Amino acid sequence: MSPQLRQHFEKITPLSDQEFEYISTHFVAKKFKKHQFLVQEGVPVPNDFFVIKGLVKASFTNDENKEHILQFAMEDWWVCDYQAYFNKTNATLNVDCLEDTEVLCLSLTNREKLCAELHKIEHFFRRKSNSGYIALQQRILSLMNSDAKGRYESFLKQHPTLFQRVPKTLIASYLGVSRETLSRLSS
Amino acid sequence: MSPQLRQHFEKITPLSDQEFEYISTHFVAKKFKKHQFLVQEGVPVPNDFFVIKGLVKASFTNDENKEHILQFAMEDWWVCDYQAYFNKTNATLNVDCLEDTEVLCLSLTNREKLCAELHKIEHFFRRKSNSGYIALQQRILSLMNSDAKGRYESFLKQHPTLFQRVPKTLIASYLGVSRETLSRLSS
Repeated sequence: MSPQLRQHFEKITPLSDQEFEYISTHFVAKKFKKHQFLVQEGVPVPNDFFVIKGLVKASFTNDENKEHILQFAMEDWWVCDYQAYFNKTNATLNVDCLEDTEVLCLSLTNREKLCAELHKIEHFFRRKSNSGYIALQQRILSLMNSDAKGRYESFLKQHPTLFQRVPKTLIASYLGVSRETLSRLSS
Repeated sequence: MSPQLRQHFEKITPLSDQEFEYISTHFVAKKFKKHQFLVQEGVPVPNDFFVIKGLVKASFTNDENKEHILQFAMEDWWVCDYQAYFNKTNATLNVDCLEDTEVLCLSLTNREKLCAELHKIEHFFRRKSNSGYIALQQRILSLMNSDAKGRYESFLKQHPTLFQRVPKTLIASYLGVSRETLSRLSS
């Protein structure tokens, strides 16, 4: 199993070879082509995804068919429709690939099993969830407070790699600005 | 120590009398008057707060002195500037009382100590953090997607008690609509 996953866990908690081997039996590797869906609106969401390679977006499409981008995810990021995953309901989001993508899938059953069996894995996921919470709070403040320029500059500073890899139309959607505004800001 | 805290923990994990007694020694009770601050911008944030009684708001004030409300919290809710608390930086938010308020304070040191010593407490806080993450994701989607009417209706449905207790001007600020729009919607 991927040394990338081990490194990712070990940023928060050290693991023995034996522990990591055991943990990795709970993940399933999958490959997706560009444009394929990891999560599809209206369908159950059995797995959370750790991105090994590639780039995806998580988005919500409203009744007028307008897409709102909630999150991008590339190497070493986790992505899912967490509401549907944790509550075992159908997805309200779509997660689809902007590039060919390789992921490790973790089912909710396996996640809860690992967390119950290994205190350090529960610790890992608590820490990840705290970080995710803080990031979302920052995103809310940015949506409420910043103008287009402020949001653009903060995105560029925080995510220079995403800015290179993600089509500008999608960055505009993520920031809630028009494609024209983004062109003006980035020129 | 408050039976309310025990009931709150036991919604997620059962505790023996001995366990709860031990856990409760890590909390400190404090009382605040209406208008007092639990968290103040620019100052370190040593404690997370569990609300026993009362009502507070967490908000961000921008350079133009405009206040954006991130969250309200009443009985059985947790509230803090989590970025500052977890990263041990100074607060960027204010948390102040809309009513006389009683809280239980949990320092970061005590939180991490309890999580390390008691697997079930780590489990509790992971579950709380997951729920918090989902709630923030919903708030982002609502900010991105809904019009004033949609946001108002969803708030009223989710938080009928808050709607009664919180001054309408503050609900308008939370929803990102004008006081006049809110009056029109709620009449």
